Amino acid sequence: MSTAISPLAPTNVPDMPRIAGVRLATAAAGIRYKNRTDVLLALLDKGTTVAGVFTKSKCPSAAVDWCRDRLKGGEARALVVNSGNANAFTGKTGKQATKLTADIAAKAIDSKPAKIFLCSTGVIGEPLDATKFDGVLATLAQSAVPDGWNNAARAIMTTDTFPKVATATVKLGKAKVRINGMAKGAGMIAPDMATMLAFIFTDAPLSSAVLQSLLKSGVEDTFNAVTIDGDTSTSDTLLAFATGAAKEKGAPEIKRASDPLLKEFTKAFYGVLADLAEQVARDGEGARKLVEIIIEGAVSKKSARKIAMSIANSPLVKTAIAGEDANWGRVVMAVGKAGEPANRDKLAISFNGIRVATKGARDPSYNEAEVSSLMKQPKIQIKVALGLGKGSDRVLTCDLTKEYVVINGDYRS
Amino acid sequence: MSTAISPLAPTNVPDMPRIAGVRLATAAAGIRYKNRTDVLLALLDKGTTVAGVFTKSKCPSAAVDWCRDRLKGGEARALVVNSGNANAFTGKTGKQATKLTADIAAKAIDSKPAKIFLCSTGVIGEPLDATKFDGVLATLAQSAVPDGWNNAARAIMTTDTFPKVATATVKLGKAKVRINGMAKGAGMIAPDMATMLAFIFTDAPLSSAVLQSLLKSGVEDTFNAVTIDGDTSTSDTLLAFATGAAKEKGAPEIKRASDPLLKEFTKAFYGVLADLAEQVARDGEGARKLVEIIIEGAVSKKSARKIAMSIANSPLVKTAIAGEDANWGRVVMAVGKAGEPANRDKLAISFNGIRVATKGARDPSYNEAEVSSLMKQPKIQIKVALGLGKGSDRVLTCDLTKEYVVINGDYRS
Repeated sequence: MSTAISPLAPTNVPDMPRIAGVRLATAAAGIRYKNRTDVLLALLDKGTTVAGVFTKSKCPSAAVDWCRDRLKGGEARALVVNSGNANAFTGKTGKQATKLTADIAAKAIDSKPAKIFLCSTGVIGEPLDATKFDGVLATLAQSAVPDGWNNAARAIMTTDTFPKVATATVKLGKAKVRINGMAKGAGMIAPDMATMLAFIFTDAPLSSAVLQSLLKSGVEDTFNAVTIDGDTSTSDTLLAFATGAAKEKGAPEIKRASDPLLKEFTKAFYGVLADLAEQVARDGEGARKLVEIIIEGAVSKKSARKIAMSIANSPLVKTAIAGEDANWGRVVMAVGKAGEPANRDKLAISFNGIRVATKGARDPSYNEAEVSSLMKQPKIQIKVALGLGKGSDRVLTCDLTKEYVVINGDYRS
Repeated sequence: MSTAISPLAPTNVPDMPRIAGVRLATAAAGIRYKNRTDVLLALLDKGTTVAGVFTKSKCPSAAVDWCRDRLKGGEARALVVNSGNANAFTGKTGKQATKLTADIAAKAIDSKPAKIFLCSTGVIGEPLDATKFDGVLATLAQSAVPDGWNNAARAIMTTDTFPKVATATVKLGKAKVRINGMAKGAGMIAPDMATMLAFIFTDAPLSSAVLQSLLKSGVEDTFNAVTIDGDTSTSDTLLAFATGAAKEKGAPEIKRASDPLLKEFTKAFYGVLADLAEQVARDGEGARKLVEIIIEGAVSKKSARKIAMSIANSPLVKTAIAGEDANWGRVVMAVGKAGEPANRDKLAISFNGIRVATKGARDPSYNEAEVSSLMKQPKIQIKVALGLGKGSDRVLTCDLTKEYVVINGDYRS
């Protein structure tokens, strides 16, 4: 398996600022990997609110079950993430492992297990030996510091080729507040491993209900609009934590999602989600091209999303892009199979701004050489205009290369 | 692009008998390919009934539109198939091309255009020059003979690596009747080309309504239960023709689908469909393994189908099989993402008869070496028992190999 960094990795990695109320520490606990960190502990000051969205899989991991149940409390004191083992499809043992991990963490930080949030990513079906956290978490609790965001993002990687971080600073009322995020991806499921994980931290004083509302709406056009291979992990988890520490700097407490003071913050929050989501697509397994699908003129946003996903998940469209082939016939096919309203004779399709098809047939002015040259670019935009209504959408994906098959096929568990 | 025959090709190719009332001829009309046949004309005696099922694509080819409109008449005198150009997404020109082809064929056989059925498979979006059929079809009409079924199946191939034929002989009343079939597949869409096509011919005297009913029910567990890559062609077409010539041998005329005399015939008819459908899976682009997905214990047949398709279309499951990896974690993932009722803690999963997971966790008695050795076989059966109800289903697919990506990506239009 290649360990080369994706050619689509961002060239500018932001300097991650501190978030008051958050401290981080990582360790190499030997869960599965050797010579690398595989445990992250994020300590959260008292009063930190929490929100989360999870995989829709009917076979979720034990950690997902654990977090879902704990969200009701609305408060978090720590986040524990391990890579190397997903603790998914592990039956009763898996459930016991989550409880033991939370107990160990709660003891280490003098809190309650119900305020500990857990995420696991790695192999499915192998029991997670939670006793490995014993001692480790206590040490981490002692050594946690406000810096080290890149190291934290690195500790949660599986087959990711680069750590993914994003940050924003924005005014809430008259105070500056911060939003930091990190994510891991690779495939929706990496080789034999599970999970897209993302964590957002802010010092803004938001109630857990406000945070949940932000997450739920923000995820729709960011993480939910990214697909690598159409496969959905048993463990996908996005958690957000708000320490409220910015209150001391005069930031107003926000208790209603409709509060107009939240406007700028919401924009910045969505921006961090979008940034991380794009990085996940840029690090898709074997990816050599970032692909943006834009749908216009659908009968509704929902319909546009279905058509966009049909294109983004089509192996034939994705292999064509890998081959730098502006194969619009396959885009027509993917529109046709989406099952959504579409009128063949009104369709127009563009690749990187060049219209190749219009009114249900090849664009008479279409220049094959010009389009072929554009297809060599690292980012490909496919735009489909349906000419039916006002529904539009945007989805990100990557190409399907031989390397994807090598990573996922030649790899043996 | 490799032209080697799929290692999964059937070793026994049947001797195809004649079907009274059907005559065949092929020609090289130079539609796109050189040095190979690319036009098939099947002449059908007067009184031949016809039925058809088509792609559900919202962007169907001009030939699909043509056939759909002509089905109402219930009668057919000829089938014209060309490979090399799909006449799909060709706008008004495409519609004109179908009319011109039908006119030429009707003239050549002294019939009406409305009784000519057309199928085109090949490149999408390029105008089909129907004038190429002029002269060719008249010559074919003169030279058509009752034999040459393999040649006929070869003329309709695109990236197929072997021609696909199947036959059955069965009693209808006291008379022996015959059913011959041929198909082409490759991908649901082959490289830059479209289409699964299949044609069934019988001398049984069946009304077009009976034939349509047989097709509609027969396709459900045969062609509709096969997937190569989840992509749906703009041109998928399955047509059935019944010449009725067996009447002379004493076969009873069947005018009601519920006629008890039809029982044995129906079984044989389904058998031919199933045989051809399996051959399509065996010739999936780049396929090295035939994969059978069996679902048991789902809440309904419909639910079982959705779960089976979720597994069969998962790139991660398919690449794992290519890598001879009994990666049941990915099967769990695919069950979970299907969106159908499933209880993680009741799931059992087997590979080629060896149970690897039970009650939501790894089977304690599971022997990795034993399963790994079975995964080297050319046919892989994945069985999932959900333990919820009595719904069951079976779907065929193939693995996802580097060759699939090479065929569909490195290939340039």
